[in-house]
Amino acid sequence: MAATAAAALTPATPLRFKPYSTLRFLSFYSKNPKSPRLFPPLPRRPVPFHSAIPRKRCFCSVISAALQSGEMKKREFPEKKVGEMGNTVGEFRKKLKIADIKGGPDEGLNRVGQTVVVMGWVRTLRVQSSVTFLEVNDGSSLSNMQCVMNSDAEGYDQVESGLIATGASIWVQGTLVASQGSKQKVELKVEKVVVVGKSDPSYPIQKKRVSREFLRTKAHLRPRTNTFGAIARVRNALAYATHKFFQENGFVWISSPIITASDCEGAGEQFCVTTLIPSSREAADSPVDAIPNTKNGLIDWSQDFFGKPAFLTVSGQLNAETYATALSDVYTFGPTFRAENSNTSRHLAEFWMIEPELAFADLDDDMACATAYLQYVVRHVLDNCKEDMEFFNTWIEKGVIDRLNDVAEKDFVQLTYTDAIGLLLKAKKKFEFPVKWGCDLQSEHERYITEEAFKGCPVIIRDYPKEIKAFYMRQNDDGKTVAAMDMLVPRVNIKIFSSVVASRFVITNIIFLLDKFRHCDAPFITNIFVALR
Amino acid sequence: MAATAAAALTPATPLRFKPYSTLRFLSFYSKNPKSPRLFPPLPRRPVPFHSAIPRKRCFCSVISAALQSGEMKKREFPEKKVGEMGNTVGEFRKKLKIADIKGGPDEGLNRVGQTVVVMGWVRTLRVQSSVTFLEVNDGSSLSNMQCVMNSDAEGYDQVESGLIATGASIWVQGTLVASQGSKQKVELKVEKVVVVGKSDPSYPIQKKRVSREFLRTKAHLRPRTNTFGAIARVRNALAYATHKFFQENGFVWISSPIITASDCEGAGEQFCVTTLIPSSREAADSPVDAIPNTKNGLIDWSQDFFGKPAFLTVSGQLNAETYATALSDVYTFGPTFRAENSNTSRHLAEFWMIEPELAFADLDDDMACATAYLQYVVRHVLDNCKEDMEFFNTWIEKGVIDRLNDVAEKDFVQLTYTDAIGLLLKAKKKFEFPVKWGCDLQSEHERYITEEAFKGCPVIIRDYPKEIKAFYMRQNDDGKTVAAMDMLVPRVNIKIFSSVVASRFVITNIIFLLDKFRHCDAPFITNIFVALR
Repeated sequence: MAATAAAALTPATPLRFKPYSTLRFLSFYSKNPKSPRLFPPLPRRPVPFHSAIPRKRCFCSVISAALQSGEMKKREFPEKKVGEMGNTVGEFRKKLKIADIKGGPDEGLNRVGQTVVVMGWVRTLRVQSSVTFLEVNDGSSLSNMQCVMNSDAEGYDQVESGLIATGASIWVQGTLVASQGSKQKVELKVEKVVVVGKSDPSYPIQKKRVSREFLRTKAHLRPRTNTFGAIARVRNALAYATHKFFQENGFVWISSPIITASDCEGAGEQFCVTTLIPSSREAADSPVDAIPNTKNGLIDWSQDFFGKPAFLTVSGQLNAETYATALSDVYTFGPTFRAENSNTSRHLAEFWMIEPELAFADLDDDMACATAYLQYVVRHVLDNCKEDMEFFNTWIEKGVIDRLNDVAEKDFVQLTYTDAIGLLLKAKKKFEFPVKWGCDLQSEHERYITEEAFKGCPVIIRDYPKEIKAFYMRQNDDGKTVAAMDMLVPRVNIKIFSSVVASRFVITNIIFLLDKFRHCDAPFITNIFVALR
Repeated sequence: MAATAAAALTPATPLRFKPYSTLRFLSFYSKNPKSPRLFPPLPRRPVPFHSAIPRKRCFCSVISAALQSGEMKKREFPEKKVGEMGNTVGEFRKKLKIADIKGGPDEGLNRVGQTVVVMGWVRTLRVQSSVTFLEVNDGSSLSNMQCVMNSDAEGYDQVESGLIATGASIWVQGTLVASQGSKQKVELKVEKVVVVGKSDPSYPIQKKRVSREFLRTKAHLRPRTNTFGAIARVRNALAYATHKFFQENGFVWISSPIITASDCEGAGEQFCVTTLIPSSREAADSPVDAIPNTKNGLIDWSQDFFGKPAFLTVSGQLNAETYATALSDVYTFGPTFRAENSNTSRHLAEFWMIEPELAFADLDDDMACATAYLQYVVRHVLDNCKEDMEFFNTWIEKGVIDRLNDVAEKDFVQLTYTDAIGLLLKAKKKFEFPVKWGCDLQSEHERYITEEAFKGCPVIIRDYPKEIKAFYMRQNDDGKTVAAMDMLVPRVNIKIFSSVVASRFVITNIIFLLDKFRHCDAPFITNIFVALR
């Protein structure tokens, strides 16, 4: 298996291969350097060849052959004037993707009759007696473009010779027609196909379902699976919605330093960042006595990169607060690191965290902001990643769409810690951890409150006893509790907690620790997280 | 100086101070727990007190006193039913900021007569015989709100007692009136002022200009200076415009791992990430012999956090490429680390880098995308950060607006390396570094091309000799050059370079190394970078 897989992963063409060897299949690409692109010419520089191309082809992105450089004149320094030398740079056009074709309200029927080009990777190939079906995916959506090919299509010989197999990257041109199948409204009747990168039957990501552990050994190919593609798209949507929400509400994004000498209360262990240990390839066999030391046998930090010990940040909070007390409302959104040695779905060595800081705000503003943010991003994902969320709902976690709809639409309830304890004490339920004012709430307590007492509503618990919260949280009038809140979202793995800090200013700090921003890719992490699980 | 500065930095109130002591100045805040907020009530839960507040106050954000928790009943577990317990969370409203008031086309004149609340920090205080002028800044814009106060304004005693001084954070309510001054169209006629955090004359950021080196010693306060505030806003605008550009063009944002075992060609030295050295506070006196070692005296990496040597990423390129060959077009935008020991404006240990990867694209697409991106973000900043850019133009770098306008509007010129060498050989200029086909272009060469030969146009140089570029770049037909490009933007410190990689797929890689994303805050960096310098 390993041998065949390795073979499959060898580049189809050697590094620095003879250029354009595959692109030459594109027979309508002239070698004329004046006509390298299918895009319509810039007005000021008309290129005759372009106007001969039917206008509708402008819908599609193309592999243009970039022949100009290949046409370099034999004389090395041609007698050009400066004015003759530079060409202007062409216009950038958004590519037409499968999602653009099939994503509209009529799922592509409005484009029937158009000639389009699809570029992507072959998911499956079914050769039937009279017709060949190619499922092509370009990663813009979960669903593929079904390409239907007769043996008279240009380039069909590449199917016969086995170059076009699952995993191959191809360029397909054809006409959009209404589909006979029930799975899609439109399909592509292929006129021409070009292999950009060939594949063969040893390609490891075939149609059958494979384990995530297996995919970890094919990290360079797993983004092509349904699950990883969907996670990437949902994460992207969540990240962009996060920026949109804060930007639209007047927050300023702050990139707090990653390498730092500061610690943060209660954040766990830090990673040390150093150049005292030889880097990279040599590191594996580094002698300990090569590390600079002082006369007393201590590490000589003065010889380290920064001249003193440095660490990876565990929180951008302190930095964000200095900006909040100058710019009013700010947020960080960047990677954060904890050297906690535990393999649970709640602990990662590296994750992206969002830390908004609101100046001149109190716990009510804080709760309102956290709720509005969460509802905004959840609504954004439900609206913009329908297909991916349906995939999760069917294959990864049944009911997730309903639960997220609840988050987006239900009123969030706020409850003081004291009321929550009263509720738990009266509950007709035996808890493993005894309930008592002053105790930390355990998962079983939180679940009872959200799932049973409030029947699936997201609940914010506020005003915790000061003894179980950090020293800097603002004390309430009662002298016993502090202005802190935890948001509990039933059966959706979202952690939002915050507190009001009182120093020179009134600041509210919300930390959003969203599971979906956790890394699927960090090479050292053994857990695979699914967005929104 | 150090002693007085330290005094100024002591929190105005001790940690966990008696809550709401300052907020009680807000006399119209009832202690009634039913009326903690000025925001209008949610429709479903009318709170009578709210409706009594004039509607126009809804414009302003308020410090609400969050009195509910202070009103905790004496009996700890009141006999409430669940239905009576939870209140719904209030609605989140965007704050009215100074930029919103003064940023409109008529610079606030449309709001004359409105009662508004401004919350921010006092920049200057001028007490004249009949009237007191307070300049208040909330960080939403460079310019302040001029607040004009008579001695009959509520809270004026705080001016007399010296609580309100430069650096104090205050809450001001007043009526917007047309200003007599020439600097602004509107000013605030103060009805009431409340000190949220007091200040005194030792506050270190007074009106006079201070050096950046001095500000490094006041890192927690420097975001309140004009320069750092403007940098933060411009950076924020650049970051958001970056996301907008790529999102609008169908790219997927990828968060490539920061801790990695991979290296990247030509990226320089890496930082080692380890937990073998005791973290944080203990690190300063760590004995070398406490580091786990094998019998041979080598570092025992099996005992490190990841069981093998790990490093900070020098590039997300390899990770982004695996996604590009699955999702078509992706970009990374995250921190990157280089352990290069040089103190120049071109080297930082930590910086944010953007790495777009386009599948099915060639060097022309690459150049078009890079050009479109750069013009988009520059246009966005010129349009959205006018005041900040004018500040840079006046105080930091004269002419920067004109140069950026050129970037946003001029056609970018593309030129082959071979043509560029021809141009340099014919130049009537003596270069320090001799020009010869095959040589690396030096700054003096690049400057001649952009500033003299092409008179200030941004120039892309493409098709470099393969000997001076990385092994993975795609070879052109001539057998001598590779499909790589460098973008030269005259007198704007922007570095964009990219290449076409040929392996299984046709991918274009653009790396945008924007100076403005560089850290002003990393505690170890001695250079301060100004956006867009």
